[in-house]
Amino acid sequence: MPSYRFRLEFAVRDYECDLEGVVNNAVYLNYLEHCRHEFLRSVGVDFAAVVAAGTHMVVTRAEVDYRRSLTSGDRFWIGLDIERPTRLKLVFVQDVYRLPDDELIAQARITGAALSASGRPVPIESVSEQFAAYIAPQAH
Amino acid sequence: MPSYRFRLEFAVRDYECDLEGVVNNAVYLNYLEHCRHEFLRSVGVDFAAVVAAGTHMVVTRAEVDYRRSLTSGDRFWIGLDIERPTRLKLVFVQDVYRLPDDELIAQARITGAALSASGRPVPIESVSEQFAAYIAPQAH
Amino acid sequence: MPSYRFRLEFAVRDYECDLEGVVNNAVYLNYLEHCRHEFLRSVGVDFAAVVAAGTHMVVTRAEVDYRRSLTSGDRFWIGLDIERPTRLKLVFVQDVYRLPDDELIAQARITGAALSASGRPVPIESVSEQFAAYIAPQAH
Amino acid sequence: MPSYRFRLEFAVRDYECDLEGVVNNAVYLNYLEHCRHEFLRSVGVDFAAVVAAGTHMVVTRAEVDYRRSLTSGDRFWIGLDIERPTRLKLVFVQDVYRLPDDELIAQARITGAALSASGRPVPIESVSEQFAAYIAPQAH
Repeated sequence: MPSYRFRLEFAVRDYECDLEGVVNNAVYLNYLEHCRHEFLRSVGVDFAAVVAAGTHMVVTRAEVDYRRSLTSGDRFWIGLDIERPTRLKLVFVQDVYRLPDDELIAQARITGAALSASGRPVPIESVSEQFAAYIAPQAH
Repeated sequence: MPSYRFRLEFAVRDYECDLEGVVNNAVYLNYLEHCRHEFLRSVGVDFAAVVAAGTHMVVTRAEVDYRRSLTSGDRFWIGLDIERPTRLKLVFVQDVYRLPDDELIAQARITGAALSASGRPVPIESVSEQFAAYIAPQAH
Repeated sequence: MPSYRFRLEFAVRDYECDLEGVVNNAVYLNYLEHCRHEFLRSVGVDFAAVVAAGTHMVVTRAEVDYRRSLTSGDRFWIGLDIERPTRLKLVFVQDVYRLPDDELIAQARITGAALSASGRPVPIESVSEQFAAYIAPQAH
Repeated sequence: MPSYRFRLEFAVRDYECDLEGVVNNAVYLNYLEHCRHEFLRSVGVDFAAVVAAGTHMVVTRAEVDYRRSLTSGDRFWIGLDIERPTRLKLVFVQDVYRLPDDELIAQARITGAALSASGRPVPIESVSEQFAAYIAPQAH
């Protein structure tokens, strides 16, 4: 199993299960977002405060591979890592594992960008210098 | 604009908008699923009846490119086309356009598969011969 | 059947159904809100614009009696009427009927209030004089 | 503050907030349901297993008084108590308190019933003797 910068535990809630009796595919996007926002909070970035200050942080691309289902009563965790392929893009690498057996449930890559109030892409440095430094690759 | 096998109109509902004031990224997966199920119904496949009969139709991969936002008061439509890259997989190509200007909002490719009650992948023919014939490439 | 000031038609979406195979109880609150907001729009009140202008319109009490279930494939409509028991409160009387048989599915009374930016209750006149006049009881 | 039979802690997730920036009124029904199901699990009743065995446990009435809002970053807990006004009805008394100040956010009374596969109301004893004994008033 890869190591992750951040992990968050969840329990499936029955209302998240659909008529197939498993967590609906859309709900994973909710889980992934909550994990990202908690990660951001853990490094000093308050999503709602950033929005209130006029910068939008938006998802520009989502890719999810669903490998197994989660169902009523399941607990699971999401591991998160982050990449910065370009100055204006962040990619959150997020994997979902069932507990307690750490079975891989889903793998996701969520690309995000920050937009100024006028809708122009801005680098993550304009959101938080601290966060930008945190995700910067280490010099060798 | 490409032609599509099926299209469905929607109106944004305010509860689908998040604290950024736009439709949340996860809600697009709901829209896309509803469009697929209505498409299936239009060609004689009742999703809930298929599930009740013991076959699960599951999403195995979702890719969504979010190009612009939808917000309160917006109407939009989703165009759907379908590909069958292998005997056991269907790919739903689904594009979201705002109304009335047909601005492209999002593009998605949703891969699905049918699973028997025991969880084994089965070809779409085992769900519906009629549907399998409908999506078969035409002989030339 | 009572007459209503406003009615709106819906179709059940499969993702709204839970593991019992019926529309989840919370989803009715979504339906009812969407109906209220479309009603407000029909009388010239744009919910998102009111919020953006600094007035919050909030639900202070919800009562729902669930009489029958809605399930996959069902269509239904919501009838809405409005009462103003006090200067600061509105009560939306909302009933849900299945189509095409008009079977009564649920009955709701949703109480709402308008709050100024500082959180103080304000009369509906401060949101829209036109709307306040629309809901005023007729003089005899 | 009243004592409760059961309590469960939550954190607001940003996708649960609507364009007013607060948790949407419908989401409270999700929270309340999750709390009830975790309570049931704690006393030996697995909701999904009961449904799979052919008994539906349904909400027949929901009453919620919304006193204050929850917003991004808030943590809160729900206290649950249970009443049995008649042999065929349960009332879950559920109150929502913000953390860490225990400010009262919402108060709810959710009435539920159990239905046999044919839709006939059945007493809770037919779901679980153990649960029925647990909620029985003590003889004096």
